[in-house]
Amino acid sequence: MIQKLIANIKKTNAPIVVGLDPMLSYIPKWILNNCYGEFGQNLKGATEAVWRYNKAIIDATYDLIPAVKPQIAMYEQFGIDGLLVYKRTVDYCHEKGLYVIGDVKRGDIGSTSAAYATAHLGAVEIGEKKYAGFDEDFATVNPYLGSDGINPFVDVCKEYDKGIFVLVKTSNPSSGEFQDQLVNGKPLYEMVGAKVEEWGASTMEGDYTNVGAVVGATYPEMGKILREIMPHTYILVPGYGAQGGTGKDLVPFFNKDGLGAIVNSSRGIIAAYKKDEYASFGEKNFADASRQAVIDMIQDITQYL
Amino acid sequence: MIQKLIANIKKTNAPIVVGLDPMLSYIPKWILNNCYGEFGQNLKGATEAVWRYNKAIIDATYDLIPAVKPQIAMYEQFGIDGLLVYKRTVDYCHEKGLYVIGDVKRGDIGSTSAAYATAHLGAVEIGEKKYAGFDEDFATVNPYLGSDGINPFVDVCKEYDKGIFVLVKTSNPSSGEFQDQLVNGKPLYEMVGAKVEEWGASTMEGDYTNVGAVVGATYPEMGKILREIMPHTYILVPGYGAQGGTGKDLVPFFNKDGLGAIVNSSRGIIAAYKKDEYASFGEKNFADASRQAVIDMIQDITQYL
Repeated sequence: MIQKLIANIKKTNAPIVVGLDPMLSYIPKWILNNCYGEFGQNLKGATEAVWRYNKAIIDATYDLIPAVKPQIAMYEQFGIDGLLVYKRTVDYCHEKGLYVIGDVKRGDIGSTSAAYATAHLGAVEIGEKKYAGFDEDFATVNPYLGSDGINPFVDVCKEYDKGIFVLVKTSNPSSGEFQDQLVNGKPLYEMVGAKVEEWGASTMEGDYTNVGAVVGATYPEMGKILREIMPHTYILVPGYGAQGGTGKDLVPFFNKDGLGAIVNSSRGIIAAYKKDEYASFGEKNFADASRQAVIDMIQDITQYL
Repeated sequence: MIQKLIANIKKTNAPIVVGLDPMLSYIPKWILNNCYGEFGQNLKGATEAVWRYNKAIIDATYDLIPAVKPQIAMYEQFGIDGLLVYKRTVDYCHEKGLYVIGDVKRGDIGSTSAAYATAHLGAVEIGEKKYAGFDEDFATVNPYLGSDGINPFVDVCKEYDKGIFVLVKTSNPSSGEFQDQLVNGKPLYEMVGAKVEEWGASTMEGDYTNVGAVVGATYPEMGKILREIMPHTYILVPGYGAQGGTGKDLVPFFNKDGLGAIVNSSRGIIAAYKKDEYASFGEKNFADASRQAVIDMIQDITQYL
C-alpha cells in the first residue's frame, strides 16, 4: 500500500493530505439551512450538511492531492447517522482516486485489535463471503498497549495490502507528559519510534514499510531525531497550519529522496474561507477557498524540499 | 455517576461486569442458522445473531450484575450493521437497569477528544435540541496523548453525569513494553496512575471520582501499588478468567471498604457453555450456563473480600 500512496504523492507532487474533520461551526450557513429545510433540523439534516460540505471540498481539491484523512470522531459524535456519512466520504474519496487514511486512533489487544483492524482495513468472513466494514487504506493506531495491540493490525495490512500509522510523538501541547519521559536517558517516543521500525520490518515495499508513524509538525527537533531512528518509516505529520507548524519546520521530517513524510492540514484547508487570507472567496465559494489553500500549502512545503 | 454504579454493586453484592464481546465463533450454531435462514448469510443475518445472543445473555444475568462492558471493536468489525447492534445492546441494557461501560478505548486531542466524548457520553447540539450518539454511562480512554486527551472527556462527564476509565496497566503480556519502562526510577504506569488521580480530583462523589483506571488482573502486584497511588480511583479490572487472573489475585485491587474495583469477564461468561465446566448445559441452554458462570464468578471473588 505504501508504494501506491508514494506513487500518488509523486504524481501530484504534493506530500500532503487534507484532513476531513468537519465541525458544524465550519459548514457555511447556506448549506446547513438547505439541509435543515430538506431533512429537518436534526441528525439527518446535520449529517447531510456534513456530507455536502465534504463532497464540495473533495470535488474542488481531489486532482491536487494524493490522499485524505477523515477524523472519525467528528462523524462518530453524530452516532450511526454520522458514521454513515463517514463511510460515504471514504467511498467517494476512493471513487475520486484518493487514498484514505482513517484517523481512528484505535488500539486494543489480541482478538480485539484484530477486530478493529478488520473493521477499518480488512473484512469479516460470514460463510464464504467477506464484508468490509469501513475499508480505509490506512488507519492510525495507538501504541500504549504494546506489540499485542499492533501485530494484529500488521497481519491485516499484509492480508489486505493496507497500512497503518502508529502514534509516536503527537502534535498537542501535553504530548510530552508521557511521551517525553526519559527511559534509560532517552525519551519514550524514541523507544516507540524504534518499535515502529521493528513492527514494520516484515512489511517492506521498496524503501518504506507499511507501518508508518505519527509525529507532530509542532516538534521539528524531535522529528529530525525520529527521522533518523525510523529510516524506513513514512511519517504522517499533523499540526501544520492551525496548530502552529510551518513549511520550513517540516524539512526534518523528510528523507533526502524528498519522500518519507506526508503532512496533514484540516481546519486550515476545509475552513479556509473563514481565514482573512481567503475571505474574499466568500461563503458561497468556500470550496474554491479550500482549493487555493491546498495550492498554497503545497507551495509552502515543497519550496523547502 | 460513580455513586450510581456503586449503589448497583452494593445492591447485587457483585463487583463484576459482564463483557459483551461477541465473536461469531462463540454464538451457538442454532442461533446463527436461524438468523441466516431469516435474514440471509450476510451482515444482517450475522449481526441479528449477535443481537439475539447478547439479549439472551442479558436476560439470563441482568438481575445478578450491576453493569456490562460491551467491547465496541467486536461490533465495529461488522461496519454500520454492527454498530446498530452495539447501540441496540446499550439501550437494552439500560432498559434492564444495567450501567454500560463502553469499552471504546478512544483518545485524541482537543476538539477531537471532545467529539469522542460527545459520541459516547454526551450529545451533539443541533439547533436547540441535543442528540446522544451511543449514550454509554462510562467509556474507556487511552492516556498516551496526555491531559489534552483526557480533559475534554472529564468536561463531558461533569456535564452529563458520566464517567471514564483510563488505561493505566493493561492485562496483556506485552503491556510492559512501554507501560513498565522506568521513569525516574518508577514504572510509567505509576506516573499515569498518579495523573488519573489528579484528572479525577474535580469529579469527586463521596469517596471516589468519576475518572477510573483500567488495571489488568494479570498483574496483582502492580495492582496493589496502583491501589495505593490512586485511593479515590475506581479500578476496572480486565483479565480475570480466560486471561489467567483468579479471585485471590483480585484482593489487592479493592479498598478496605470492599469497594474500589469492578472485575470484568467476557469470554468466561458469554461463552461459558463451551467450557468443560458448563458443558452439561448444552448449546441450547447457553444463557443458563452464562448465569451459572456469573454466580460462580461472584462467589470466587467475594469469598476473599
